[in-house]
Formats: sequence, C-alpha cells, structure tokens
Amino acid sequence: MNYTLVLRMLGQILRIEAACLVLPLAVSWGTGGGDAMGFAVTIALAGVIGQVLCCLPGGERRMQARDGFAAVALSWIVMSAFGALPYVLSGAIPNYIDAFFETVSGFTTTGATILTEIESLPRGILLWRAQTQWMGGMGVLVLTLALLPKTGEGSVHLMRAESPGPIKTKLVPRVRDTAKILYSIYVGLTVLEIIFLMVAGMSLYDAVTHAMTTISTGGFSVKNASIAAYNSLTINWIIIVFMFLSGVNFSLLYYALCRNYKAVLHSEELRLYTLLTIGASALIAANLIVVGGQALNARTITDAVFQVVTVATTTGYATVDFALWPTFSCMILFALMVTGACAGSTAGGVKSIRVILLVKNLRREVHNILHPRVVQTIRVDGNRVEENTLSGVSLFFFAYIALTLIGALVVAWDNVGFTEALSASMTCVGNVGPGLGALGPTGNFSGLSALSKIVLSFNMLLGRLEILPLLLMLFPSMWK
Amino acid sequence: MNYTLVLRMLGQILRIEAACLVLPLAVSWGTGGGDAMGFAVTIALAGVIGQVLCCLPGGERRMQARDGFAAVALSWIVMSAFGALPYVLSGAIPNYIDAFFETVSGFTTTGATILTEIESLPRGILLWRAQTQWMGGMGVLVLTLALLPKTGEGSVHLMRAESPGPIKTKLVPRVRDTAKILYSIYVGLTVLEIIFLMVAGMSLYDAVTHAMTTISTGGFSVKNASIAAYNSLTINWIIIVFMFLSGVNFSLLYYALCRNYKAVLHSEELRLYTLLTIGASALIAANLIVVGGQALNARTITDAVFQVVTVATTTGYATVDFALWPTFSCMILFALMVTGACAGSTAGGVKSIRVILLVKNLRREVHNILHPRVVQTIRVDGNRVEENTLSGVSLFFFAYIALTLIGALVVAWDNVGFTEALSASMTCVGNVGPGLGALGPTGNFSGLSALSKIVLSFNMLLGRLEILPLLLMLFPSMWK
Repeated sequence: MNYTLVLRMLGQILRIEAACLVLPLAVSWGTGGGDAMGFAVTIALAGVIGQVLCCLPGGERRMQARDGFAAVALSWIVMSAFGALPYVLSGAIPNYIDAFFETVSGFTTTGATILTEIESLPRGILLWRAQTQWMGGMGVLVLTLALLPKTGEGSVHLMRAESPGPIKTKLVPRVRDTAKILYSIYVGLTVLEIIFLMVAGMSLYDAVTHAMTTISTGGFSVKNASIAAYNSLTINWIIIVFMFLSGVNFSLLYYALCRNYKAVLHSEELRLYTLLTIGASALIAANLIVVGGQALNARTITDAVFQVVTVATTTGYATVDFALWPTFSCMILFALMVTGACAGSTAGGVKSIRVILLVKNLRREVHNILHPRVVQTIRVDGNRVEENTLSGVSLFFFAYIALTLIGALVVAWDNVGFTEALSASMTCVGNVGPGLGALGPTGNFSGLSALSKIVLSFNMLLGRLEILPLLLMLFPSMWK
Repeated sequence: MNYTLVLRMLGQILRIEAACLVLPLAVSWGTGGGDAMGFAVTIALAGVIGQVLCCLPGGERRMQARDGFAAVALSWIVMSAFGALPYVLSGAIPNYIDAFFETVSGFTTTGATILTEIESLPRGILLWRAQTQWMGGMGVLVLTLALLPKTGEGSVHLMRAESPGPIKTKLVPRVRDTAKILYSIYVGLTVLEIIFLMVAGMSLYDAVTHAMTTISTGGFSVKNASIAAYNSLTINWIIIVFMFLSGVNFSLLYYALCRNYKAVLHSEELRLYTLLTIGASALIAANLIVVGGQALNARTITDAVFQVVTVATTTGYATVDFALWPTFSCMILFALMVTGACAGSTAGGVKSIRVILLVKNLRREVHNILHPRVVQTIRVDGNRVEENTLSGVSLFFFAYIALTLIGALVVAWDNVGFTEALSASMTCVGNVGPGLGALGPTGNFSGLSALSKIVLSFNMLLGRLEILPLLLMLFPSMWK
C-alpha cells in the first residue's frame, strides 16, 4: 500500500470538502441562522488537516489498484466523519452518531433521515444536507479528477472504484476528460432543473436544494412533507422527468448530446429501465384502482409514476405515503429497490444492466444442460461480455442480498416490525431512502438503536461503493 | 426428446403411486372413515393409466440428460395431479386447486397447508397426507431406481435431476446400488423414530405419521397444534434429533455407518450446518430472554432449538407460534429458510454447501482485485470445485431469490401483509411450511386466491427440484 499517496488523496478530499462548506456558511451568515460557527469550525478543521496531509512528502510511485480502492473507501468514511460536524456543532443534530448517519445518507445519496422535523432547521444546515447529496451523486474523487491539473496515469483506478456498474467505459481516452464530461452533464442537468422548478413556482432556495437532491437521486427535501408539500402536478412531473434522466447511464446522455441516437436507442439497459418503469407504474396504478379503491384520474396515475420513478432511481422523495398502499404496490416498490436504475448514473441498487446479465447468464446455464458442448458467449448491445464480469455480477448479487439480510438482522434486534427491519436494510444498501411500514416516507430512522444506525451507515457506504472496495479493506494483505 | 421413454417413466410412477395408495385404503377400511371410495377410484385410475403408459412400445434408445429432466419434472406434476384426487373424492378438500396445493406441499415436503381443521379428517386421508411427504422426501424416481430390476445406463440422469445439491456424488459405482443404500438409511431412520416416539408415549398411528413427516423434513402433523399437542419435552427432543439427522447429507450418514468417521468430521458443510443451528438457537434464546422477557429455563431453550431445527431443516413443525416472537427471532428464522440444511438430505432451501461455495467464491473475487494474475482454485473438503459448479451455484442463488420475489408479488395482490406475502413465497420455494405473520404456524394458506395457490404450488415444485429442471421445460428446443 502506498500510504503517502492515499493520505494525500484524503487531504485533497478534505480541502474540497472545506471549500464546499463555504456556500452553506455564506447562506448561514446571510440568513442569520446561528449555525455559522459550526460551518466555520469545520472548514478550519478540514482545511488545516487537509493541507497538512497534502504536503506529506514522498509516495511518488504510480498509483496501483489497491491504492485507488483504499483512497476511495477511506475518503468516503473521512468525508462523512467531517461532514457530520456542522450538524453537531450547530446543535441541529446533537448526537454524533445521528449526525454521521445523516451525513452518510447524504453523501451516498440515500436520503434516509433521522430528523423528525425538517422545516425548523436553519437554512445553511438544510443547504449542506442537500449539498452532501449533490457531492456524493457523481463522486467526490471523480470531481478531484475533473478539477486537478495533475492526475497520474493511475487515476483510472480511482474512477473505476468510485463509479458504479459492472462494465467500465471511458467516453474519451483520457480519464480527466471523461470526468469533465460527466460533471458537465451533471451541472447542466442541475441548472436546467433549477430553471424549470422556478418557472413552476418554487423559490430559488427550494429549487436549488431540490435540484441538487433530484439529479443526485438523493431525495433529501427541505419540506417535512417532501414534494407533496407543493401540491402541484407540474412540479411532480418536472421532478419525475429529471429523476428518470438521472437514472440513465450518463454515457448515454453524452451520446444523445453528440447526436449519436443509435447508441441510445439500442441500449438494452435503457430499454429494460424504461420497461420496468412503465410496467411497474401500470401495475401499481391498477392495484391502487382495483384493490385500493382509488379513482382512475391524473392524480392516481401521477402518484403511481412518481413513486415508481423515485424508488427505481433510488431517489426517495414521496408525494404520498406509499407505505400505506396495498401490499402489492409495496412489494413492487420493494422489488424496484433491488433492481434500481442504470449503471453509470447517480442511482443505487443492483442496477438494470446486472439484472440483464444475470438473466442472460441463467438462460445460458439452463441451455447448457441441454447442449453441454456448445460454448455460448453473452452479448450486451452487441458487445461480448467477459466471463470474469459475469461471475463478478453473480457474486455481487449474492453479496448484496447477504448484506441486506445481515443489516436486517441487526435492525430486527430493535424489535421494529419485520417489514420495517427488512426494508430499512434494503433501502440503505440500495441508497433509496424511505423503507416500508413505520419506516416509510412519513416515518424516520431516529428511533433505531445506535448499533443499527452505525450498521445501516456502513450498508449505505457498501451500497454506494458497490461492496467490493469496502470488503477489500477486510483483507490483511491489502494493508501491506 | 424420447417421448416414449418419458411416458413409460410416467406410467411407472403412476403404478407406484397406485401401490402406495393401498396402505391408506386399508386404514380407511379398517377405521370405517368413509374415504375408502376416494382411494379405490384413484388406485384404479392411476393403475390403469400407468399400466397403459408402461406398455407403450418403442423408445429403446438410451436415456439422454433431457429425457431425465423431462421425466422428473413431468412425473412430479402428474404425481401431484393424481395424488390430489383422494382429497377431492372423499370430500376432505372439496376444491381441486386446494387439494393440488396440499398434495404438492406434501410431495415437495413443504408442509404448508390449506386445512383449517386437521383432527376431524378421516385417518386414511391423514395417513396419505403424511405418506406423500415420505414419498417425496427421498424422491419417487430414486425409488423406482432402487426397486426396478432393469434400469439402463441413462438412469444416472434421473438421479441427478431429482436429488438436491450442486455436487453429485455416487456412493457406489452403480446408480441402483446408491439408490438402495439411500433408501435403506431412509427406512432405517423412519423405523427408529417410530420406536422412539412410541416409547415416549405416542400411539402407533401418531408415531408412524410423525416419523414419516420428520425424516422427510415435511412437517405435516395429524394434530391441529402440531407437536405442541403432545406437550412433552422428551418428544420435542426426539423430534429435534431426527429432524437434525434428516438435514445431514445422507452420504455422511452412510460414511458414519461404515465407520468412516474422518469423512464425517471433516465435512465443511456439516460443520456450517451444526454451527448455524447452534448459533441461531443461542441468538434466538438470547432474544426471547432479553427482548421477549421469557425466563431462562429448559422450556425456552427447547423452544428456541426446536424452532431453529424445524426451520433450518425445512421441516415446518411448530411447538410455539414463532410468528409472535420478537422481530429478531423471526428474522433469524427467515434467514434460515434461505440457507436450509445440507445438500443430499431431504431438506430444502439453498443448502449450506452452496452458502460455503458462494462465500469462498466471493472471497476469491475480492482477493482477485488485489492479485489479478493469481489463479486460485476453490476447494471443499480438500476437493477442487469445478468453475462450472461455482458459476452454476451463483446463478441458482439468483434464480432462487428472483422466484421468491415473483411469488411474493403474486401473493401480494391478495392484499395479505408484506411479511405474509414475502414469507409465504420464501417458505414455499424453500419447502419449509409455515411462513411469518398471519401465515405462521397457527395460520394456513386457505385464504389465498386460486392464482396464488397455483403459483405457490409451482414455487414448491421449483424449490424441490432445484429450479433448473423445471426452467428447462420453457425451452422449445427441449421438446424437439
């Protein structure tokens, strides 16, 4: 392990975090919320420690895969540890474990909250809460790649460890340029949504915070009632469209911008994602009408589509308390928590591309019983998929379910309901946000034990970093 | 497809089923229960159709893999279709779909029931109910292999398709001898348990029916209150021991009989199975005492161990309504429903050996990130595991979870609770029996819709035959 290099990366992350905290500090001063001191102290602390780490000498060796994984895993933990300080110092969340949970939920774009009352909090704090999601959505290390002038050849390992999905594609030959393109699309989408939301009647502050938590598929809202507070079909549909776009592989958005529509239309993952979204919406609407006794009108359809898209993209907003819906609708949402949206987007979950690979691989496995001597290759979008990738995807799925069960066991000790325990763990590993039952959109995670909150925090990190980089930390040979 | 050969196999199965029905017919006559006519008609029907199918000419070609899979899949469906007739004809279960569900639950040794009242049913019917589990436990086609004098070389395909587990071992070179050894152990265990239960105070009838449903890890009881009806710690522990033994790979029981204790003690699967059983019992006992407020005494320990063993071996008896236990205990049982006991036993679930292979494979996958050029082989009990087996196991796990979710979705439309829908599907795929919540040990499946019952019936069959043989039936090329 190239410790110096990893520590320097951590230093850079802390400096960036300090810089990002200036915006909430300014808002805090401007609104006189009394939370300014918390931001100032955190900025000073993160800035000084970051500066010291950045100045560490030595470690000039090229970055190896293990260094990249360690840098990513540790920086997410360090970032969350410091990011929790403003909550504690301002008194908004007095308990550090609660604040850590909230910060991890932010950076991992989960959106699960321990807050029981949101609107009374200072504006600076709520901005920081939204901002953690925006920072975590595209990845903070990818951001350093885009910003910093000198990134060695080894930087591809950072990108690989932080960006989700089983198949890594570089849009353009240089890693730094790829990172710039991704962040440009990300910023562009955010600005576009701010404009749309303001035209639809939101204030600048509400539009900025909601755009930040939509495009990152995070789901933190500055309103207690989440998006339901605006009671506007227009706002609902603006957010549905931007959530859906944020769940699309950003490579495809780039191809669309380059007018390479063929690549977009032929994407099997985009097709499955679209199909799942439309299919699930139709099934839920049918269930709400037939079993739930609701009327067939724009409201019901919008509610069904909104809740499907918010869960499938792992955003986690709500316009109704879907935990009160009939069981079938809840079960569909539970299944969508597992599948998630597209790889290479800001969404969590197992991701549609993995579902495609698993199904194709299963099909081949069954086919092989009949024709054991025929060697079939599996293709996605016409490209051959490596056997290593296929076995990696199957094992990822197992690890995902195993982690969910372990998390559910820990939460279950708190003696919340079975539905609550299982869905809390599932929603955290999938970076969705709300669970089902009493931990649904109108509930919160504050009643859980400290142990549950810590385990769920790590489940959120495991889900965001796609498990393997964090599991790697358990190997002694990693630290040699 | 060698249709003639497959149809002849089906004929043999029907003849065996007709022969097996003679015992309940005799009991029915002896006890004057009025259900004798139902048995007589079924015996005549199955016997005549079986005889006709057996006399089909041609099809002398050697049995291929696809013929074996088709014979197994179809014979389980046909066997259940005919096995349901005595219930309907005697009026014990007037609805054919209910009777089919109950029969499939029997043959697959699941133990889920649609009956609301058991003790008022005629003795012949209850014997047949227990007997379906005993027939299904070791596999009916394996029975034909053991009984019939002429089984071609291709019979290994039958054995392979019907006996559970990712790695198939032949105890002795000839398939027929292996089948005979397995059935001898099976009969031996059953007789031994009958004796123990009678010594502990059970009547002959109760002892026979319970031994049949213990050794097959089925779980049907002739009492409404299941094993709780006997209110005897001695009976509880006799059943615990025999359930545990029936969850052990029968090859290991054979080695133990041959005094090859080294093979038994070095079995990684047996170690994990034992560890899970002891660990889960301890955790549940702790949970019942700390959270549930129960006293630390023999009753609490016995309850914990009994419920862990009944679920881990996928038997499905109950001595308490574990659905009312604290959430942590329910979640442990839910996790045990997934893992199950050992391969090569009569138990269902994913099975411990697959869990071992998945964890070892995941470990290697993470290790490979650090050392991509090192090729590691995975060993179990010192033997190298083929890469094909490893990828097959991962895909089996995916198929297992996917099936469970699909089943849960169908049941959820009936608007039972979330816990009920998910656990009903899980318990059926895992061939356990009771679910959680209202579908727990004191509940039953009678309130579900016909669609749910049919889908759950197929989930039971899929679980018993380990999914792939039945998925194979969906390939058009299978039927050429």
